[in-house]
Amino acid sequence: MPVGGVTALKLKPITGVRIGTSSAGISQTDRDDLTVFELDPKTHVAAVFTNNKFCAAPVVLAKKHLAEESARYLLINSGNANAGLGKAGILTAQTCCAELAKKVNARETQVLPFSTGVIGEPLPVDILVGSLQSAIDSFSKDNWPKAAKAIMTTDTSEKGCSRTVQLDGAEITITGIAKGSGMIRPDMATMLSYVATDMPISEPMLNKMLKEAVDVSFNSITVDGDTSTNDAVVLMATGAVDISSINSPDDPRYQVFLSTLKEVCCFLAEAIVRDGEGATKLIKVRVEQAKNVSDAKEVAYTVAQSPLVKTAFFASDPNWGRILAAVGRANIENIDVDAVSIYLDDLCIVESGKRSSDYTEEQGQQKMNQDEILVRIRLAQGASSSTILTCDLSYDYVKINAEYRS
Amino acid sequence: MPVGGVTALKLKPITGVRIGTSSAGISQTDRDDLTVFELDPKTHVAAVFTNNKFCAAPVVLAKKHLAEESARYLLINSGNANAGLGKAGILTAQTCCAELAKKVNARETQVLPFSTGVIGEPLPVDILVGSLQSAIDSFSKDNWPKAAKAIMTTDTSEKGCSRTVQLDGAEITITGIAKGSGMIRPDMATMLSYVATDMPISEPMLNKMLKEAVDVSFNSITVDGDTSTNDAVVLMATGAVDISSINSPDDPRYQVFLSTLKEVCCFLAEAIVRDGEGATKLIKVRVEQAKNVSDAKEVAYTVAQSPLVKTAFFASDPNWGRILAAVGRANIENIDVDAVSIYLDDLCIVESGKRSSDYTEEQGQQKMNQDEILVRIRLAQGASSSTILTCDLSYDYVKINAEYRS
Repeated sequence: MPVGGVTALKLKPITGVRIGTSSAGISQTDRDDLTVFELDPKTHVAAVFTNNKFCAAPVVLAKKHLAEESARYLLINSGNANAGLGKAGILTAQTCCAELAKKVNARETQVLPFSTGVIGEPLPVDILVGSLQSAIDSFSKDNWPKAAKAIMTTDTSEKGCSRTVQLDGAEITITGIAKGSGMIRPDMATMLSYVATDMPISEPMLNKMLKEAVDVSFNSITVDGDTSTNDAVVLMATGAVDISSINSPDDPRYQVFLSTLKEVCCFLAEAIVRDGEGATKLIKVRVEQAKNVSDAKEVAYTVAQSPLVKTAFFASDPNWGRILAAVGRANIENIDVDAVSIYLDDLCIVESGKRSSDYTEEQGQQKMNQDEILVRIRLAQGASSSTILTCDLSYDYVKINAEYRS
Repeated sequence: MPVGGVTALKLKPITGVRIGTSSAGISQTDRDDLTVFELDPKTHVAAVFTNNKFCAAPVVLAKKHLAEESARYLLINSGNANAGLGKAGILTAQTCCAELAKKVNARETQVLPFSTGVIGEPLPVDILVGSLQSAIDSFSKDNWPKAAKAIMTTDTSEKGCSRTVQLDGAEITITGIAKGSGMIRPDMATMLSYVATDMPISEPMLNKMLKEAVDVSFNSITVDGDTSTNDAVVLMATGAVDISSINSPDDPRYQVFLSTLKEVCCFLAEAIVRDGEGATKLIKVRVEQAKNVSDAKEVAYTVAQSPLVKTAFFASDPNWGRILAAVGRANIENIDVDAVSIYLDDLCIVESGKRSSDYTEEQGQQKMNQDEILVRIRLAQGASSSTILTCDLSYDYVKINAEYRS
């Protein structure tokens, strides 16, 4: 169960987006594992993909198709990543796109493929293609919760949220779903997220907003520091609401919409960490007073990924020395260690580079017993900050990743 | 028990080095925890220290003393790191050096202090100073094994080795000891190593050789990616053997000696990994055909530190996709993923960026069952290579780091 428990998804449909799911049985599961999004013709689509150089075949093809024309369909399967298979994998992904395109009377290049699951085993094309019609037949604007479940691999719960915002007197909706970080089969750590809105937004602005939102959300979380071959986040704007389009960052509505989009992306990213493998705690590492954002991120990631820090959180042990040591090995220049302060929530544990004179182990223990903890690190170097979300490192992390393949 | 088991230490004395140990009880232990090295006056000493910016007080002071004059004494305590304590920690370290200097009629700056143990708790000066005389009284050239034990924190066995080499018809000896990576108390991961030889070597050459040897040994291992605040490696040359000194890298004896020194350092570094926290397997990650050594190290470290790769090794699961994904996220430029090959020992698992056509899961399983495995990654980009040693990530790693502080 995710940190903080499970709440039922209440997802608002987005006019212009229809979703169908079906159970293909790609990886011996009897639940839905195939999802197809159908988008209204005028929809603009932006996407960001994994930086892993061994990116999977569907990532290669989705990038290529997106560069050629605007997408009308998303085809997502769980259970197999179609990765590490060379040219054969590309051919497989192409076949899947072509078969869907045939059935819906579209061009192959209007389909974006996505896969998540085991690496290095051939994707069973016939099984997938054989279940396409059933997914198409179930197209409905209300299928967001079904899709949230169908894209899961070993996530322990569905992840999704909707937010609304008033712009020009109209109610604008943003709805998103995500999966990630529950990994039982090898390399199922893939993070996938699909976010849509009925707001009209130009393609350049959509791309710009997506990058800004991903930077503070999906690119600010870490479970184990490993980057999947298949990660992707897609943002779709159907423009179904009849107001003028956001075409410039100077449009006053740009920041209002972006702020709501960030809220949705941050909620989804946090949901991924809460459902992190073996997670018993949600840890927010916030670095403040850094010279620049890049320094702040480096320090925050170094602390958030330290196995020593993460096991201390699992044990609820106020080992502040481990946090201090992680800050000290972060790859940034000219840090003045005698100026660094560290807090657990509002409790000062390190002041001017050494144990705070007021600090007591009992106070630290109390903080560490919480299942959500904010670690604040003040570098006293500047005005930039960054927050990285992570979880603790538990026996179950090792168990999940060591025991479940065979 | 370390991977590969325990063998009794057979350490040859080095003429010009006397060692004394005693039990101060710094951290409620009833074994020796204090070690003093006495070096003949003409001994040259070189040292490398942690890069952690929160380096401990003894590291700050040892660097300062070493810059001022050549060392005659090393003072090492286990049980307390004397770190994270600001100026009070420096004063403590100074007091310890001064007290030892008084007793042996030396200058304070001729003493190099080293500490390993818990961070952030004051070092009990009186207890340490009170046991100095007992250590001095036990000075003997034969106390290397005792020192190997006294510097341990939660290591499960002593680590040391001796090698000899013939130079100019004389038998030259190198003897070294090390501790590290058994961590029960927080941040006791400190790596310390002391290596001595009776070969005459000039100070600049000693520094140069130490850097070269550390680079391929102590700086090529990783247990969890965390760098301690107290790491140090010291190389001492007493010059007791009556042949001419090595004063230049062009001296033909330079490479012969260096190669033996590397052997000693690599043995000690490997012993640390074999005794890594919770380790059940020794993994050597060798990256070949890289554009340069820095690229090779980056890829090797990324694979060696991947929690997914390490848990797969713990489970003896031939999850080659995890190795591939780690290579793909390594921070190097222009990697041609379609040219990458990966081997377990001599078994090719990935060829030209995809699963080798000959590979079978049974073959992979056989390799993964071994308790020592070589992962070879060929980048097909150049002629440089690097090897990083690591261990697997087991339940016991989490247990050791989560459960044992209180």
